[in-house]
This record gives sequence, structure tokens and C-alpha cells, in this order.
Amino acid sequence: MKKNLRVAVVGAGLMGADHVHRLANRIVGAEVSAVVDVDIERARQAASRAAGAVAETDITRVLAGDRADAVLLATPGFLHEQTLLQVLEQGLPVLCEKPLTPDAASAWRVVGAERKIGRKLIQIGFMRRFDAEYRQLRQLIASKELGEPLMLHFSHRNAAAPSSFTSEMLVNDSVVHEFDGIRYLTGEEIASVQVRLGRPTRHAHPGQHDPQQVLIETTGGLLADVEIFVNAQFGYQVATQAVFENGIVNIGNDGGAYVRSAGRWGGAVTPSFVERFQAAFDLELQTWVDAARKGTIDGPSAWDGYATAACCEAGVAAQKSGETVCVSLNEKPALYREA
Amino acid sequence: MKKNLRVAVVGAGLMGADHVHRLANRIVGAEVSAVVDVDIERARQAASRAAGAVAETDITRVLAGDRADAVLLATPGFLHEQTLLQVLEQGLPVLCEKPLTPDAASAWRVVGAERKIGRKLIQIGFMRRFDAEYRQLRQLIASKELGEPLMLHFSHRNAAAPSSFTSEMLVNDSVVHEFDGIRYLTGEEIASVQVRLGRPTRHAHPGQHDPQQVLIETTGGLLADVEIFVNAQFGYQVATQAVFENGIVNIGNDGGAYVRSAGRWGGAVTPSFVERFQAAFDLELQTWVDAARKGTIDGPSAWDGYATAACCEAGVAAQKSGETVCVSLNEKPALYREA
Amino acid sequence: MKKNLRVAVVGAGLMGADHVHRLANRIVGAEVSAVVDVDIERARQAASRAAGAVAETDITRVLAGDRADAVLLATPGFLHEQTLLQVLEQGLPVLCEKPLTPDAASAWRVVGAERKIGRKLIQIGFMRRFDAEYRQLRQLIASKELGEPLMLHFSHRNAAAPSSFTSEMLVNDSVVHEFDGIRYLTGEEIASVQVRLGRPTRHAHPGQHDPQQVLIETTGGLLADVEIFVNAQFGYQVATQAVFENGIVNIGNDGGAYVRSAGRWGGAVTPSFVERFQAAFDLELQTWVDAARKGTIDGPSAWDGYATAACCEAGVAAQKSGETVCVSLNEKPALYREA
Amino acid sequence: MKKNLRVAVVGAGLMGADHVHRLANRIVGAEVSAVVDVDIERARQAASRAAGAVAETDITRVLAGDRADAVLLATPGFLHEQTLLQVLEQGLPVLCEKPLTPDAASAWRVVGAERKIGRKLIQIGFMRRFDAEYRQLRQLIASKELGEPLMLHFSHRNAAAPSSFTSEMLVNDSVVHEFDGIRYLTGEEIASVQVRLGRPTRHAHPGQHDPQQVLIETTGGLLADVEIFVNAQFGYQVATQAVFENGIVNIGNDGGAYVRSAGRWGGAVTPSFVERFQAAFDLELQTWVDAARKGTIDGPSAWDGYATAACCEAGVAAQKSGETVCVSLNEKPALYREA
Repeated sequence: MKKNLRVAVVGAGLMGADHVHRLANRIVGAEVSAVVDVDIERARQAASRAAGAVAETDITRVLAGDRADAVLLATPGFLHEQTLLQVLEQGLPVLCEKPLTPDAASAWRVVGAERKIGRKLIQIGFMRRFDAEYRQLRQLIASKELGEPLMLHFSHRNAAAPSSFTSEMLVNDSVVHEFDGIRYLTGEEIASVQVRLGRPTRHAHPGQHDPQQVLIETTGGLLADVEIFVNAQFGYQVATQAVFENGIVNIGNDGGAYVRSAGRWGGAVTPSFVERFQAAFDLELQTWVDAARKGTIDGPSAWDGYATAACCEAGVAAQKSGETVCVSLNEKPALYREA
Repeated sequence: MKKNLRVAVVGAGLMGADHVHRLANRIVGAEVSAVVDVDIERARQAASRAAGAVAETDITRVLAGDRADAVLLATPGFLHEQTLLQVLEQGLPVLCEKPLTPDAASAWRVVGAERKIGRKLIQIGFMRRFDAEYRQLRQLIASKELGEPLMLHFSHRNAAAPSSFTSEMLVNDSVVHEFDGIRYLTGEEIASVQVRLGRPTRHAHPGQHDPQQVLIETTGGLLADVEIFVNAQFGYQVATQAVFENGIVNIGNDGGAYVRSAGRWGGAVTPSFVERFQAAFDLELQTWVDAARKGTIDGPSAWDGYATAACCEAGVAAQKSGETVCVSLNEKPALYREA
Repeated sequence: MKKNLRVAVVGAGLMGADHVHRLANRIVGAEVSAVVDVDIERARQAASRAAGAVAETDITRVLAGDRADAVLLATPGFLHEQTLLQVLEQGLPVLCEKPLTPDAASAWRVVGAERKIGRKLIQIGFMRRFDAEYRQLRQLIASKELGEPLMLHFSHRNAAAPSSFTSEMLVNDSVVHEFDGIRYLTGEEIASVQVRLGRPTRHAHPGQHDPQQVLIETTGGLLADVEIFVNAQFGYQVATQAVFENGIVNIGNDGGAYVRSAGRWGGAVTPSFVERFQAAFDLELQTWVDAARKGTIDGPSAWDGYATAACCEAGVAAQKSGETVCVSLNEKPALYREA
Repeated sequence: MKKNLRVAVVGAGLMGADHVHRLANRIVGAEVSAVVDVDIERARQAASRAAGAVAETDITRVLAGDRADAVLLATPGFLHEQTLLQVLEQGLPVLCEKPLTPDAASAWRVVGAERKIGRKLIQIGFMRRFDAEYRQLRQLIASKELGEPLMLHFSHRNAAAPSSFTSEMLVNDSVVHEFDGIRYLTGEEIASVQVRLGRPTRHAHPGQHDPQQVLIETTGGLLADVEIFVNAQFGYQVATQAVFENGIVNIGNDGGAYVRSAGRWGGAVTPSFVERFQAAFDLELQTWVDAARKGTIDGPSAWDGYATAACCEAGVAAQKSGETVCVSLNEKPALYREA
């Protein structure tokens, strides 16, 4: 089997610790070799979630010791530039949580360093590009099936924001996802931005003007608008309505993606059990493998196999007779009786 | 790191081959050590999808050579009994695709063999138990939040069935999932079964009476009905409507799970980005790991980081001025220009 | 103008009184000439809701006095036969709330009386036949657009039933609507009926077995099932799922009618403002007529016309300039200031 | 009975003719006494749809002859001022299709004339104020149940616009409804307007910039945005999403109004058959009255009453026995056999 990718996770805050857990438990072909944080306790706690991971306070030691094949960078944005330059020097791939850096000038310096190396090593953590509905929408735009896209309406709503979340962060930390989203969906760059501040909610912290409306135009003349509302109370929602020449597409809604076109509204029916139960199949096998490694099972047992076999026998008899057929089972053995 | 679970997959048909691919690419902590099929070519083809897997025609050799820690059994049901007894003798865990065996008598023999060993080694492939909405419904029943469940209405519809799919198989291969589902959801055994054959579709093959309605009563007096329709043309659907004393719950529908209770209909709002984008985060990291192991990246690049940093700068300026602020980008370097 | 139809309403209970109000206020071309009830007070109260209506205790006097062109019969079912025969003798049209009579033998006597007259005078109050979605479904069945209908699944749920509502009334008063509905939708008669009594809700009154499942087969072999649940707590729902050879149709759901066919789910988009706002147009004019007859207006005023004209002027200027254009209004005159 | 309101309809174009039909067939207490149009043929054709209506070319003659109690004005907007002043002079109520007049100055003159009379006689045809979902939303805003409204997002989409529909008309004829809508919903006046012209559809006629985005702020600081798209191809849609401090409300969507608040999304369940079948009851009685005036019936017959009585008898027997009970009907008499 091919060797696992040894990943050093830098930054053991909420997001970093979550990635450590993800790499250790849900990602095939990777292992966490080191967790780096200036707070060694935090590093240790996160490292304890991944077998074989050691805690460090400095990425330099990890790189020097050749203990990582790749780096996942999850520190605050203002700390990114230095680490990125260091990792680029080693020629290692890095997954950098957004933002690349906090401003265009420093971001351009990182771009320059990568260009000097001559191959792309940095991936930015814009995870919406990996969302199934976003991907569908992008494909639909590319296919020109509904003509050209004309407008994009975005809603981006959080239940509540902490008091440390400033008015600028509504743009820098939240709308940044829509900035990238528009670029990803349309393949065009952003040409201009306008922000409207209207009546604010009483649920915002002092200094937070919330909600705001951000008006965007792409280099290709497409209009987009973003309602960013970080104290929306009701829950979380990230939704997009795309207006095409021949139809309207909604993603991120409660009822799943759907299209309004040619006199009809609605969505695609699941074509078969493969799509319908893919996640269930994955979970089934993962659960079985996890239990088997511990010497147990954690799913339907042989008793369930026996009981349903008896049901099927009764069912086929009922099918033939038209009558109600009783199912009789042997007594349930003790082995299957516990929980 | 803990050693991977070495799985021998027996049966390399559609389902078996799919499981080989799943174990090799999506399941953490497992590897396929052998693929067994009487048709060695089929075994080889499936084995080629999993690094390190060898093809065999007989599970006996694999077991004798101590080349498996666990067995996944995906042969036709009538072949299950013999293999299961063999694997049980070795004390290995086995994931057995449904049915356990084709009839209650043989299923009871397998139960007996497992009891002799004294611990549960067999898990049955009822994958609906791992479906998120099924789990929610089960939890809701257990919680008694809406009172007692009174009726369960099931729809089980496939687009089309092959001509080899007999009338009996509508019960044995399809409704078997509802038999287990009812048991799983309610914790009760099935007490009786009745089948109604009405007007058949013209899309069924000769000898297939389709659709059928299966009427079920549990030992606790709950009524269930199943519409099984294997030539429904429109696509695939597995849905359940649960009738409680205080409300109605729908799962498996186009618009997601929802509840009708206390004068309202609707569902739960996603509480935060964690739930909304969990699958995207997983895919993001898996994509990054897969690409990094090949020395490439396959996601947003440093250029995307730079461009969005410029957007944010413009956005914050626009926020302050109320004016439209243009975004100006440096020329895109060649490195980032390809696809 | 053509003379109004003078209607005598017999029975001034909840339903009768409601019909008096409806005839007087929402039905064009009709007037209530008499309200008949053995309880003269109840008759008077209902009659007071319709200009020109007189209260009576006996329909005989009304008929003798030639004071009705038609009769609306809303007494309990066991009283229907006698009144129907009396009205038929006069050759008057009658709208008879369901049931025609409480049993098949007496119903057949009424049919006999009508046949003797030789033209149809009696209409039964199966109002579902006038429901828009029922009509759509019937049309869809007739069109054979989705092939033959194979199964019909009905849900019929009330929030709560009074203690006087017996187990028999679940069939006689509730499922009677589905009996007629199946006949209306399919054009076939009912061939057989089976009833399943399962686990009852704790919310039912003593003697009410609730819910029940009624299994029906038509003379053409179509299977139908009805869940009748008269203490469903959550609210009211009357829904039907029709299973066709080529698709599934749902009516009576929270989100409007929709179809599942050819790999898509969804419904029809409103084609134009005519369909979208027909009810609003009707209400607008009715409100205006009602107010005008009293010498007032009860809708948007000239001030609203002026204010929106100013908005449009600003809008067109904004369209041309791309700038934000302020709207300036004259002070609001006192005439328009009240509520 | 109270005398009907005699209405003179001025303007016999599409909208005027539609109102003639509405007044004659669906509005209680009104009759069309005259249809006025410079094109006498058009006036005659419209008048022929209303019993008793005469065609005229000049409203002056109708007013002089005291042949109208009220006027419905459906001519193009630039013709409104003169007629309105004339009708006001007579002190008659008038329902004036929007716009009041085409510009603020002339509108203000009409306001002045009405003020001189001292009572409100003019109602403007903003029919959205009579739409059930608009009314619900207004009520919700007034109730402060979800806190203050913060933003209103409007979509206003037509399938196609004629070539005579200019860019200015997107504001004057379409967005005028949202101008009034915002005022109606919030009780605030419009303070400013901005229009964004982005990428246009290829389906627009030359000179039509379509779609457009209109940005509105109220005197109370609430932000609204309107997507006006008059060549949207897919069909018609008028929808509003209202953003409150504590929730999000959607109206005008395919699936009915719904609210997103407190961790839940969804809508209200119909409380009882009264709300669910009100329209059906109205149509049932109107159909019966219309048929009865012609001496026929046009709904379920005595045969239907008999057949369902037989079903109920079988149903109750089935309820008691648990068995399948056959329904046997007498032969259907000839009287009931046709269509």
C-alpha cells in the first residue's frame, strides 16, 4: 500500500483541532504527524485525537526533522505569510485556511514566492467549492443549459456573532466566501463593490452594523448582491439564487436545490439506490470496520437476518394466498438480547 | 498507527466490486487483502481497484493463509450459509449482504453456529439503518416526543426491474428492507403479513405482478403498509410517513425530512456551518490529500487567495464610503492561468 | 338582469348557517328566501345574515307559498328522505348535504322518486369534486398522460373529533368523502372494502377506534387505501398520492400539488399574473363594491397613487443616472392621514 | 334586497374587459351599466359579457344620464387625469387602475381635487394589497412577532414583455407595484431609489434593458431590493423575502408562504376543513346556483349518494368483521348513465 501523507497541522484552535480529527478519522491516505501551536497544551490536546501525532510549538522543528509531507495551516490570517514562505521553501504542499493573508499586498508577495518555485503548492480553504450544490450550479452555468447567468442573489446568515466580530469582518471573514464563490461560479473576476448599511438589528453587538448588503459587479457585467447577516437568530443559512436567461436556480435552501424553468419548478429525482444510499453505505462499512478492529459488531445481527428471513417467507405465502399470514419466530437467544 | 483491517471480499459482482472500491478509497483503517470469486477474471478486475489485493477463486485458501482479518460476503444469498459457517469457524467478523440466507430454517442454523461461538461476528447489510433520516425517525420514535407511533406508510419505488426479478423477489429482495426497517424503527417484531395484488402496470415483465401492497402488523399492534413498485419509471424513491399520536413525520422525500405537528409543518434549520458544510470539508481535505500524494493541488490556488484579498480591501473601503469601489488586480501570472 | 334564484335553506346548524352566509355574500345570482329549522330561534339567527330571508319551522309552508326556486338541505342525514321526496314532488332542484340518506335502501327509494320525475334534481354535497387539485388529478387520470392509475393513497386527518363521533362515523361521515372521491377520480365503482384496526391513539374518546385504515378495491382492480385519523392533533389534512404507471402525483400537501415523473419532481409555475392574482382581483373589486355601496373606499387611495408616481419619477431618473435619487413628497394632507 | 351598484367601466382593453366579466359574474351586489371606449366595437364586445350593459364612446353621456353609481377606470394612465376630475365632480367613487396619473405633478392635482371635495372617492388598483400572502406578511410586520423588519428582497418576473414595453416601463409599470408594496407592508414612504443595469438577457427587445435591480431605502432606513425581469421565460413569479430581526419570511413561492425562525423552517398547517375547502364550497354553490337557474344540475347526483351509502354500509360491516366486504349496487338507471 502507498505510504500515507504525513500532515503537520499548524494552529490548534477550533478549526485546526477539527481538521486533526478529520484527517485522523475520515480521510483515507493521510495521517497527522505533528500538531503545532504556540500554546503547547492546546497542541497536545489536539494531537491526542490522532494516533502517532506529536505536539510542537514551532513548525521549524517539524520541517527540519523531515517529519511532514504536507502542512495544513489554520492559524489566524495575519500569521500566514511567514509560515507559508517557510513551507514553500521546503517545497511542501500546504492547505491554507482562508484568508491567504489579510491584505492584497502581502498576498501578492506569497504569490511571488510560489511563482519563483514554479509550481502550485498552496490550496486555499474555500470549502464551498467542494459543496455538492455549488458544484451543480457551477456546472449548470458552464453548460449554458439555461442561457447566460444574469444575476446572483446570495444570503449568508449566521445565528449569532461574537462581540469580537467587527463590521469589517462581515466583509473580510464572511463575504470573502461569496467573493470567491462568484469567481468560482462564473469564472470571472470581481470588478467593483458597493455596500449598503440600512436598519440594523438590535441583536448585534456595539460596533457591528448588521445586516449589510454588498453589491458586486463582475468584469463580465454580471450583478451580484449579498445579504450578510451574522446575528440572524433563527439558525444558519447559505443560499444562492441564480437568475439565468431561461430560468431560476436555487441552492442552499431547506428543500434542496431546484430549478424554475419552462413552466415548471422542481428538482431532480434520485435515479437509484446508489445515489440515495451512498452515504449510508459508506457509514455502514466504516462502522463495521471500526467495530471489527475492536473485535465487536455495531449493526444488524444474525438475529435480524433470521427474523427478516421469516418475514419474507410469510410475505411470499401471503402473496400467493391473499390471506393474512402470521410470522412465527423462535425465542430470541440471549446472545442477541442485550441492547 | 494501528494496523489496517485486512478484508477479504467474497463475490465480485456489482455490489462486491463496489464494496472493494469503497474499502480502498473511502474507508479509514481498512484494506482489501483478497477478492474472491469463482470467476477469476471478475475477481481480478475488482482486485485491480484496490492496491495490494489479490484475486482468488476460493475463500478457503485465503482463510488458511491467514490473509484476512474480516470477510465481506457479497455472493448471492443461497451461497451464504456455507461461507458463513466457514468464516465463523475461524472466528472472523463478517459483513453479510442481505439476506442472511434465503429461508428461516437455514438462517436459524447460522444463528445456532454463532451462538456456539458465543459472540456476535455477523453483521447484516441492512444499510438503511445507517441512513441519516432513518436514524432521526428512530430517535424520534424512541423519544416519544410526538407520542406513540400508530401507523407507518412506506413507498419503495425503483425505476425498472430486470426480467429476472420475480414476483417473489418483490418481497424477498425489496420489502425485506421494510421488514427490517419496521423492526429497526419500532423495536418490535413483525406479527403478520398480508399482500394485495391490484391493477398491474404495463411496464412489468411477464410474471412480475407490480406494484403490490404489503400490509404488516407488529407484535405491538402497529399497522404498516408498503407500496412496492419496481417498475415505477420516474426514478427511485424510498420514503416513509410515520403517523404519531401528535404529529406526522415524513422522511425520504424530495424536500428533506419534515414534521407536521402543533399547527405547523416544516423541518429543522441547519444550526451552523459545521453541519451545513461537513461533507464539503471532508471532500476538501480528501481532494487535497489525494492531490498532494501525487504532487499537485486540486482546489483554489494562491491566486484565488490574492484576488479575494483585493476584493475584501475594496469591500471594507466601500463599507466606509458608501460608494462603489473598483477592484484592481495585478495581471494573472502564467502559473495560474491554465484550467 | 335575470332574476335571482330564491333558495330555501333547510337546517340552520353550523353547515346550514354557513351556507346562508355564503349564498347571501359570495354567490352571484342567488338570494336566501327562507331559513327553515325546527328551532325557530336558530332559523331566525341564520336568516338575519341574509337580507330578505324569513325564518320558518316547516319547509311545507315555504313550498306551498311558492317562496323558493330551489332548496339547500342541511339537516342531519336521517331526516333527508322525507324532505327530499317533498321537494322532488314540487320539481325543485335541491343541493343535499351528504349523505343522501343514511343507508343504501332509503337512498335507492330517493333514486326511484327522482327517476319517476325523469330529470336530475338532486345534487349531493361532495364538495371535494369542486376542489382545484382534485379536479387537476381527475383530469390527469382522464388524460392518461402518466399511463393508468394503479394505486391511490389517501390521508384524511382532523385535529380532534367530538365524543359523539362514533367508530362507525369514521366510515360514514369521513371516509364517505374518499368513497366518492375514488369514484369521482377514477370513474369506477367501489367493489370491496376492508378495515384494519391497529394501535389506537390515546387522544380518542372512549368507543372511538382511531386511526383506522380502510382498504378499497374498485371494479377495475385499482387498489386504494385510506388512513382516517380524526384525532390527529396537529391540524387538518386531506391529501392524496396517486401512483400511475409513469409517475406519482401528490395533492393536498403543504407545498401544493406536484408530480414525480421522468426523473424530475416539481409542479407547474404560475403562467401569468392572471392566475397568480385572480383571487386578489376578485377581492379587490368585491371590497370596492361593498365600500362604494356604503359611500366609502377601503383600499389604496389617491395619496398612494401620488406617492408611487413620485417614486417612479425618481426610479426612472435613477435608471438613467446610475446614482441614488431621493424621493421628495409634499406633506400628506389631513384627508389621507387617518388609518 | 339592496339595489346593486351600477358601475360604468371606462376602457375596454384587456384589463377593462376582464373587469366587466368579473363584475358581472363574480362580484355580489354590482352590475355593469355601461362600458365606455373610444372604439365602440371594443366597448360593445365587452358590454356583451354583462347583461344590461350598454356601450358608449364617452363617459360624459353616462354621467349626464345618471346611469352609473361608480366608475372603474381602465384606460391608459395618461388619460386618467381628465376622467378622474370629471367623475370627482359628480361625487362618484372610482376604482382607478394604476397609475393614478403618469407623473407626480398631475397626481398631485388629482389629490387636490379630491381634497376640495373632502372625502376619499378614489381607490387605486394596487391589487397586491388584496393578496392573502401580502396581507399575512403585513400583519406579521405589524405584530412585531419576529422583531423589526430589516430588509425586503423582491423578485418580479414575467415570462415575456412586448416590444412596446420600454426600459422606463420596467419601473413605471412593474416596479410601481413594489413601490406601493413596500409602502403597504412597512407603512413607511420611499426615501431613495438607485437602479443597477448589469448583463442583459438576449431575450429582451431592442431598447429594453432587462433585468434591472432597483435599490430602495425607506424613510425609516429599511433597505429593499427589487429584481425586475420582464423576459424571464420560465413563467411568472412575484415573490418577497422579508428579513426580520428574528426570522426570515418567504411569500409568493411555489410551495406557499413559510417562515424560518427559532431553528425551524416551515409554515402553518390548515386548521380545519373550513379553510381547506372554502374555495371548493364557494364553487360548489355557485355551480349549483348557475345550473339551477338553467334547470339542470352540474355535480354529484342522487346515484352518487346511493352508491356511497352502499359503500358506507360495506365499510361499517368490514370494520366490525375485519374481513373484506363486497359492495353490491343495483344496476345504474339510464337517467344517471350519461356523462
